Amino acid sequence: MPVLLAPDQALPLNELIQAANKVGLDTTILPSNAPMPLIQGLGSLLHAGPSEVSFLSNPRLASQLAQCQAAAVIMTEQAHESLSGSAPPYRVVLCSQPYLLYALLAQWFDQHRLRRLPLGIHPTAVIAASAHIAEGVSIGPHCVVEEGAVIETGTRLGPGCVVGAQSRVGKDGLLHARVTLYHGVKIGDRAIVHSGAVLGADGFGFAPDPRHAGGWAKIAQLGGVSVGNDVEIGANTTIDRGALEDTLIGDGVKLDNQIMIAHNVSVGEHTAMAACVGVAGSTAIGRRCTIGGAAMISGHLVLGDDVHVSGGTAITSSVSRPGRYTGVYPFDEHAGWQRNAAVVSQLGQLRKRLRALEKPTL
Amino acid sequence: MPVLLAPDQALPLNELIQAANKVGLDTTILPSNAPMPLIQGLGSLLHAGPSEVSFLSNPRLASQLAQCQAAAVIMTEQAHESLSGSAPPYRVVLCSQPYLLYALLAQWFDQHRLRRLPLGIHPTAVIAASAHIAEGVSIGPHCVVEEGAVIETGTRLGPGCVVGAQSRVGKDGLLHARVTLYHGVKIGDRAIVHSGAVLGADGFGFAPDPRHAGGWAKIAQLGGVSVGNDVEIGANTTIDRGALEDTLIGDGVKLDNQIMIAHNVSVGEHTAMAACVGVAGSTAIGRRCTIGGAAMISGHLVLGDDVHVSGGTAITSSVSRPGRYTGVYPFDEHAGWQRNAAVVSQLGQLRKRLRALEKPTL
Amino acid sequence: MPVLLAPDQALPLNELIQAANKVGLDTTILPSNAPMPLIQGLGSLLHAGPSEVSFLSNPRLASQLAQCQAAAVIMTEQAHESLSGSAPPYRVVLCSQPYLLYALLAQWFDQHRLRRLPLGIHPTAVIAASAHIAEGVSIGPHCVVEEGAVIETGTRLGPGCVVGAQSRVGKDGLLHARVTLYHGVKIGDRAIVHSGAVLGADGFGFAPDPRHAGGWAKIAQLGGVSVGNDVEIGANTTIDRGALEDTLIGDGVKLDNQIMIAHNVSVGEHTAMAACVGVAGSTAIGRRCTIGGAAMISGHLVLGDDVHVSGGTAITSSVSRPGRYTGVYPFDEHAGWQRNAAVVSQLGQLRKRLRALEKPTL
Repeated sequence: MPVLLAPDQALPLNELIQAANKVGLDTTILPSNAPMPLIQGLGSLLHAGPSEVSFLSNPRLASQLAQCQAAAVIMTEQAHESLSGSAPPYRVVLCSQPYLLYALLAQWFDQHRLRRLPLGIHPTAVIAASAHIAEGVSIGPHCVVEEGAVIETGTRLGPGCVVGAQSRVGKDGLLHARVTLYHGVKIGDRAIVHSGAVLGADGFGFAPDPRHAGGWAKIAQLGGVSVGNDVEIGANTTIDRGALEDTLIGDGVKLDNQIMIAHNVSVGEHTAMAACVGVAGSTAIGRRCTIGGAAMISGHLVLGDDVHVSGGTAITSSVSRPGRYTGVYPFDEHAGWQRNAAVVSQLGQLRKRLRALEKPTL
Repeated sequence: MPVLLAPDQALPLNELIQAANKVGLDTTILPSNAPMPLIQGLGSLLHAGPSEVSFLSNPRLASQLAQCQAAAVIMTEQAHESLSGSAPPYRVVLCSQPYLLYALLAQWFDQHRLRRLPLGIHPTAVIAASAHIAEGVSIGPHCVVEEGAVIETGTRLGPGCVVGAQSRVGKDGLLHARVTLYHGVKIGDRAIVHSGAVLGADGFGFAPDPRHAGGWAKIAQLGGVSVGNDVEIGANTTIDRGALEDTLIGDGVKLDNQIMIAHNVSVGEHTAMAACVGVAGSTAIGRRCTIGGAAMISGHLVLGDDVHVSGGTAITSSVSRPGRYTGVYPFDEHAGWQRNAAVVSQLGQLRKRLRALEKPTL
Repeated sequence: MPVLLAPDQALPLNELIQAANKVGLDTTILPSNAPMPLIQGLGSLLHAGPSEVSFLSNPRLASQLAQCQAAAVIMTEQAHESLSGSAPPYRVVLCSQPYLLYALLAQWFDQHRLRRLPLGIHPTAVIAASAHIAEGVSIGPHCVVEEGAVIETGTRLGPGCVVGAQSRVGKDGLLHARVTLYHGVKIGDRAIVHSGAVLGADGFGFAPDPRHAGGWAKIAQLGGVSVGNDVEIGANTTIDRGALEDTLIGDGVKLDNQIMIAHNVSVGEHTAMAACVGVAGSTAIGRRCTIGGAAMISGHLVLGDDVHVSGGTAITSSVSRPGRYTGVYPFDEHAGWQRNAAVVSQLGQLRKRLRALEKPTL
């Protein structure tokens, strides 16, 4: 359905797979003797058209193959063997990891689009004299790069980005439109940052101010933000600067949209968080964790490696053991919820009454 | 209180109502013979001044009429009949739907303000040669409209908007300041999009990457976003692009601020969501649903038509039956919550103990 | 670790404290006779280097003093007295409120950085002829200030800010990059507003529209936003304009990132909210309240003064009594949660069964 290449740009299937397969996955095209179909895009099993590649990664979708109109379908040898009867109307691309091969093909198509975007520094961009812009950097209209900032080679800034003083973006990065980096924010190589993300705003720190009853004195936030390599940061996500040291985001971390990372948090390598997660100040999250959407992690906690938090769960104490953790109120029809919720506020009493019944009076 | 027209712009009540009532609501002004008051604005019953119109839509507020200083009050015939005694000091505008007439009047005042804003394309806007800008379009300072984008007639872009390549905004739309549309985002007619909204950022999709233990390979998102007619999208709301097909927002959908719509979600016609809602990937939400603030809808679910979700509720499985659904932990004073919450983690045990009591030992 | 001043800018300890201590806190440097160390920055007990000041505010961290390499440590007289043995290698700054003195020092360093930023109005800023820009205002690149807007003296706008028509920013304010104020938004003196914040977007108001089954007619929002003095507003936070009157934020209110304040809400003086809080329409929150991260406050409620809401709690009814309120589902290992959550939906039944056991059959 989303045909991505014009007909005159279409690529033979084998050339496309060779170009996309940077990981060196095993791939075999069946049958290999016939002329290769020309490919213009990717599609799901039900929507891919005759100039598109599709893939079967979830065995439960195998029944969709009967209707598939794609030029080629990526699947495992197992899946292929379980196909009954005569040769299918599409080419089969055997691969031990169909989903990963699909990912690589999708990356190839996206890179194809990106390569055709205008290069260079737009004349409306405002770049400080002391900023260091490496060769091969593209900077979109109305960007602002402040004093002493560094942007390494191959990185692209969409329209309206702001890179604060003394900040640094590594090489081959992609900042979409309207990304804001405050001063002193460091991002590694191959970063992808989506629109509206804000890195380096002040952490939320206040001391009681005796001059006003109930008033607050601001703790100015003097640390920065330090982001590793291969990190993706979603739209409108915010990562605050540290109070004295840096807030830390490890290599390979993936953050979805509208996530809030408070000051002095550290997030370990390859941890992934779905949208709308909030992590409060000074919490340390381990490596390879996954945090489900809208989960909330309190401040000053330690979550170990390989901790998986379900969506909507509030983590209010440290978790050292790997595993999956959940805390979600089960939903119900409103009347049923109301009836049961009324008992929640009496559970302590209920337990006492149960105990009383268990201990028969002497 | 918010007087919206200067004294020399004030309109006679009957002319104002005629101009605003595009729906053809029944309206009768009482008394009809006296000279019409000149109106400059709208106000609530307690705050409207002598050059403003007010309205009574909630019968429980009828007691406020005694203090009302408005020039005119919109009310139903029923409400008017229940007024005791002599003629009130304000004009009465009889209407079977006072709240809707108020809505139309408020729209009229807002349109009056909008009509006076500067028209045309600001010289600082950066517009690609291949973009199609229809007649009567206004584009604010520092906007960017990329290659092949289309903006239809009557649409207005506030300062700093970005319309990505091949995107399209229908006619008579209003994009407030700093709205971002990525490439391939289609929006219908009469859209209102608020500042900071981001449409078309990448959906959150990754495949395990065998090159790094625990690492992730990005699934580039090749679909787009497709938004129907008469849709409003709130400030800092994000709607991600689909993986292969489009994320779909139906006609008449109303989204409040800071909502997150993940990739491949579809939202049915006239569904309304309050602020801070998150909808995870590939979920399909029906028509005429209402989703309360900060509710969370898990991924790959189907919610039928006319499903109403209470604020703060996590919907973790599909819901086919119309109705209201709730799942909120009841709040309490902290000590009481603590006492009862301790029992929540023993409920399975508690049930067992209850069963044991119910089955007397033989 | 974050050395903030170049060596030639370093300040003697006593001069630095005098310059920073605007509140007139009691301070005594021990020993007072030796030459004062030169200070370049601040650091925590474990990370501060020999040209930095540190502080001990939490008595539990006193054991870290043994490893402290700071030039000076701020502490109370009590803490100093409990130090055993010989004179420490660092200067001691006695102060009855070490955390507040640290806050003041951090502010001093941040002001030092701010004072060195470029002043004046950037030539790419677009400023309406009828806007009033006071003396000493700095306006960054690509800002837009619309008709009739007022910016008072000493205020600084980062790159890409938009100040809508008839809006007003008081004196000595700091709007970071890409802040959006719609029309008719008033902000007091000494405001700090972080990137991506949006003030004055339309409140979410609709009336059922009989022309379409299930459709909605927009209630145009004619009120504004009114923000007091000494308010801080976090990154990507949104504060909607009122329907007819203003949404109100009191003096000294502190709002963290990604907070949503709906239309017609009022927030009392010195109330502080952590990130990701949502407050629904027309709710009134008292003075000196604290609202924990990701808490949700329903609409049309009244919260009194000194109400403290725990993170993740949904407040669904009014709260008049000061105190701490909580409502969070306790998290657990997934299997345990599942077992117990299954009982939550039977609690009404469970209570009945318990009652039945308590009333022995006659």
